[in-house]
Amino acid sequence: MAMATVNNGVNVQALLDAREALKGAPEAAKFTWRASCKWQNGTHSTTDVQSFFGLGQEQRHKTGTSFDADHPEIFASEDKGITPVEYVLVGLASCLTAGIAAVAQNRGIQLRSVESTVEGKMDIRGILGIDSDVRNGYDDVKVTFKIDGDASKKELEALVAQSQKRSAVYDVITNPVNVIVEVV
Amino acid sequence: MAMATVNNGVNVQALLDAREALKGAPEAAKFTWRASCKWQNGTHSTTDVQSFFGLGQEQRHKTGTSFDADHPEIFASEDKGITPVEYVLVGLASCLTAGIAAVAQNRGIQLRSVESTVEGKMDIRGILGIDSDVRNGYDDVKVTFKIDGDASKKELEALVAQSQKRSAVYDVITNPVNVIVEVV
Repeated sequence: MAMATVNNGVNVQALLDAREALKGAPEAAKFTWRASCKWQNGTHSTTDVQSFFGLGQEQRHKTGTSFDADHPEIFASEDKGITPVEYVLVGLASCLTAGIAAVAQNRGIQLRSVESTVEGKMDIRGILGIDSDVRNGYDDVKVTFKIDGDASKKELEALVAQSQKRSAVYDVITNPVNVIVEVV
Repeated sequence: MAMATVNNGVNVQALLDAREALKGAPEAAKFTWRASCKWQNGTHSTTDVQSFFGLGQEQRHKTGTSFDADHPEIFASEDKGITPVEYVLVGLASCLTAGIAAVAQNRGIQLRSVESTVEGKMDIRGILGIDSDVRNGYDDVKVTFKIDGDASKKELEALVAQSQKRSAVYDVITNPVNVIVEVV
């Protein structure tokens, strides 16, 4: 295994250094991620993301990004953006994928491609209030990875398993998170 | 309350009709939302969203959308998109906002503006594997709404509460979802 030539574009050394540094500085590890949402019309909204807090101070993404969300036309909406529940799938797929690249780098595995499809099954009788036994959100989510890299099937599966084990979005979806909603 | 003049851009009648129709057709209420993710380099990926399944057949958004996700520069990444955990906040804010507009329309409340900020607190010692007692995902998420509409503070709070009660993304975040990850 020629680790020196493996390059998945992840600076693992910086992450290992950060881990060492944050061991002695738990306050710096406290992050706050943010988004600001504005209702446009109907079910259409735009949400802006740029600033966050971490390493003890305010931080900013290089650029601010604005995301349109809406309901599709079959719900009598204008489909001016993807649905809110689809944004959750974007977060899950991208979180696991970033983790796979980072773990592969750490394990000296060269990746050539990582593709995935995510499917979330939802019975909309929940959100329509038809049946109180039907939940509003996803019943099941399935992520299917197709990975091409210099490793055995077993090693690739182990990469994915380790990524799951450390994935923030996987945790948020599979375990309960305390959410407080207030009106000021 | 002049309900006829209230227009938040939500076709509530169509939603009520859909509710009636789906009461007798539970199969049509089974939706599958999808996303396809491709690793680019490092922690950068792009996720495409366009097709979904519902009302018994394949459906498509009017346009396909591609979403970049990455880690920020302070994690030694290139910040080519927002982080995966921020996508979850986009989904939560937009889901609650769409619900508020729909419920307001149904209750004859004219909205003028609905703005919110979402903040998710996360201790990154979890994802870095520093402390196994620290979770990977959000410890707490707080959504703060500022609403201008033709209703009392109490009525506006009730709108938000009803939106929460029927929000798919709020459910996904606050309650466990079964997620299966596999490699093919």
